[in-house]
Amino acid sequence: MRSATIDAYELLARVRRKKPLVHHLTNWVTINDCANIVKAFGASPVMAHAKEEAAEMATLAQALVLNIGTLTSEFAEAMKLAARSANRKGIPVVLDVCGAGATTFRDKKSFELLKEVRIDIIKGNASEIARIAGERVVTKGVDSTEVKKDIVRIAKKLSKKRGCTVVVTGATDIVTDGGTAYLVRNGHPLMALLVGTGCMSTSVVGMFAAVENDLALAAASGLACFNIAAECAARKAAGPATFKERLFDCAFRLDKGTIRRLQRVER
Amino acid sequence: MRSATIDAYELLARVRRKKPLVHHLTNWVTINDCANIVKAFGASPVMAHAKEEAAEMATLAQALVLNIGTLTSEFAEAMKLAARSANRKGIPVVLDVCGAGATTFRDKKSFELLKEVRIDIIKGNASEIARIAGERVVTKGVDSTEVKKDIVRIAKKLSKKRGCTVVVTGATDIVTDGGTAYLVRNGHPLMALLVGTGCMSTSVVGMFAAVENDLALAAASGLACFNIAAECAARKAAGPATFKERLFDCAFRLDKGTIRRLQRVER
Amino acid sequence: MRSATIDAYELLARVRRKKPLVHHLTNWVTINDCANIVKAFGASPVMAHAKEEAAEMATLAQALVLNIGTLTSEFAEAMKLAARSANRKGIPVVLDVCGAGATTFRDKKSFELLKEVRIDIIKGNASEIARIAGERVVTKGVDSTEVKKDIVRIAKKLSKKRGCTVVVTGATDIVTDGGTAYLVRNGHPLMALLVGTGCMSTSVVGMFAAVENDLALAAASGLACFNIAAECAARKAAGPATFKERLFDCAFRLDKGTIRRLQRVER
Repeated sequence: MRSATIDAYELLARVRRKKPLVHHLTNWVTINDCANIVKAFGASPVMAHAKEEAAEMATLAQALVLNIGTLTSEFAEAMKLAARSANRKGIPVVLDVCGAGATTFRDKKSFELLKEVRIDIIKGNASEIARIAGERVVTKGVDSTEVKKDIVRIAKKLSKKRGCTVVVTGATDIVTDGGTAYLVRNGHPLMALLVGTGCMSTSVVGMFAAVENDLALAAASGLACFNIAAECAARKAAGPATFKERLFDCAFRLDKGTIRRLQRVER
Repeated sequence: MRSATIDAYELLARVRRKKPLVHHLTNWVTINDCANIVKAFGASPVMAHAKEEAAEMATLAQALVLNIGTLTSEFAEAMKLAARSANRKGIPVVLDVCGAGATTFRDKKSFELLKEVRIDIIKGNASEIARIAGERVVTKGVDSTEVKKDIVRIAKKLSKKRGCTVVVTGATDIVTDGGTAYLVRNGHPLMALLVGTGCMSTSVVGMFAAVENDLALAAASGLACFNIAAECAARKAAGPATFKERLFDCAFRLDKGTIRRLQRVER
Repeated sequence: MRSATIDAYELLARVRRKKPLVHHLTNWVTINDCANIVKAFGASPVMAHAKEEAAEMATLAQALVLNIGTLTSEFAEAMKLAARSANRKGIPVVLDVCGAGATTFRDKKSFELLKEVRIDIIKGNASEIARIAGERVVTKGVDSTEVKKDIVRIAKKLSKKRGCTVVVTGATDIVTDGGTAYLVRNGHPLMALLVGTGCMSTSVVGMFAAVENDLALAAASGLACFNIAAECAARKAAGPATFKERLFDCAFRLDKGTIRRLQRVER
């Protein structure tokens, strides 16, 4: 066992036992991948974006995942309805600020969501999180060591400002609730060559948050499991598509021994 | 040959010969899977949901498949336009009441569709069909023998009330036109671990209904073929994703000998 | 080297080096496939269809791909905003007239787009292109030699009339800018059995047009690379789904030797 900081397997076992319903208002590009990764890990996905039912569906769920990847104004309104319903029920709400910084619209809607509803976990890559944090960081090279230290600081600051857990994905994933910070060192370069790994990891974070109140622990555990599945999938993968197929199968079969042997999470 | 109740292969051969165009207004989560399963079996899928063309596209098709999995009000209006066009042309209309019972909106829109247009085949799992039938059944455990008898009764009653064929999918699929009832015992547990098998089976039912006027026979034959392909796909599958890949390939290659050897359909 | 008409590898190398951002307003059925094929070849896909950001996203991109496969009126408006932005920036705009000829709505919107914005490359199969060219051609049998000559003539005429490059996909793909005409003889029959190969090839054309001003050369090179990847993928494929998986992996690994050995492009 390389690391004893967290017991990611224990949370995965809980996911498989409780089979939480994870409601999504997500990206049209990766919606099928998000649904399948949740199912492969043993939970239950649902996607309902109509204003007429988004809130009601949230009352049936144990977590809500929002992703602005292919956002429209109407879709953002449905997100708010679903999130308010989730807030009332007290289930965790995860927001993937996918593409924040790319257009004024995405920034505006991200800030609107953060202002108008309670977001429990903000998740993005380094440049997206920096943008949401109001910082000016150069996006290129964020994975280098020096900037990584900077992004941990930015994530902590954002976490404190917004009173929520912040997840920054990259070569090393960072999870912080303002106090504790986890560095999840699992993963594989092939993840960056497949569309949807970012969106899928958000769904996984939501799924783990559904079964654990310590949201930083939940997020770090979920990312560790997802990234370990990716490491297993990358073996013998002939390219991004065989990697993708193996990713779902490895998530499905992921066991205690594999997680404990491969987990590399620092605190 | 374990069963001589129906000749599912004969209908599959007809699908492959006639290559019907199957028009869909379906679920955004599984739309690619629905299109690919229709194509893999040898027919031709089309998806067009704009109000401006949904009806015209239906005039080119040999069957219409509706699925409320990610419904909005506007989408429901396009469904009605397409269905009225299909009704005028006399092609079969299949409605997957995906998620009925989960929200008020889905129930309302399902009943609206059933009232305002002619639905030839209603399809759902046991709890969805029970909800549409207006029954109070406990959803958990519907696949147990006793409740299964009950769901056959409910399906028959719904069929007579609505004057249509009813399909209930589960460990055993049930098809009834009020008089005849088929039990399709083919299938594999991995189907429940993959997102989209329910939606795909609806597309397959529509595709078979496009080439056979006896809609219960068509639905039972389609489900038998799809479920036999799933049985073939499950062999050597390492998880849901290899199963998925093999499912399309097995559908594509499904032959007379395999169907006749594996088919388990009771009447 | 069977053909020295073009150096498709050289353009692929440029794509991999420059990693252009290819903005899409595309088909909901195949959106994931389009994103993944762009990524597999080494470029960067983005999909943003909200009216509020479609134009701004285009200012970040090096090419814009439009596909009317699941068009609505609102989506068409967003396409126009994105295209006008692309026109101002001077990046190439590719329009896949997917399904033109099937409904009045698709024809109308295709002509509207051609009239109201500058389209640099029109792409479709023979019957779609013939419809856009205003010709009456019988769709069945377009791949026969005699009709193929006809479609080359029609494509050239359309190219001159609209002042753009025209791509006609089929057993042999045709690319013309009115003067030069390329015949891309690479490809495999399995491509027709998989949903999305047409849409993916449009994304590939856009991706190559992002790095080469001679748009006919770009389109022919992109199609050659995509079709050669398909030839490699078809080897040992057990059906359309293994073919699909291998297609992405082969695109990812496609090398100079393979392209130069297999390329069959005539001028």
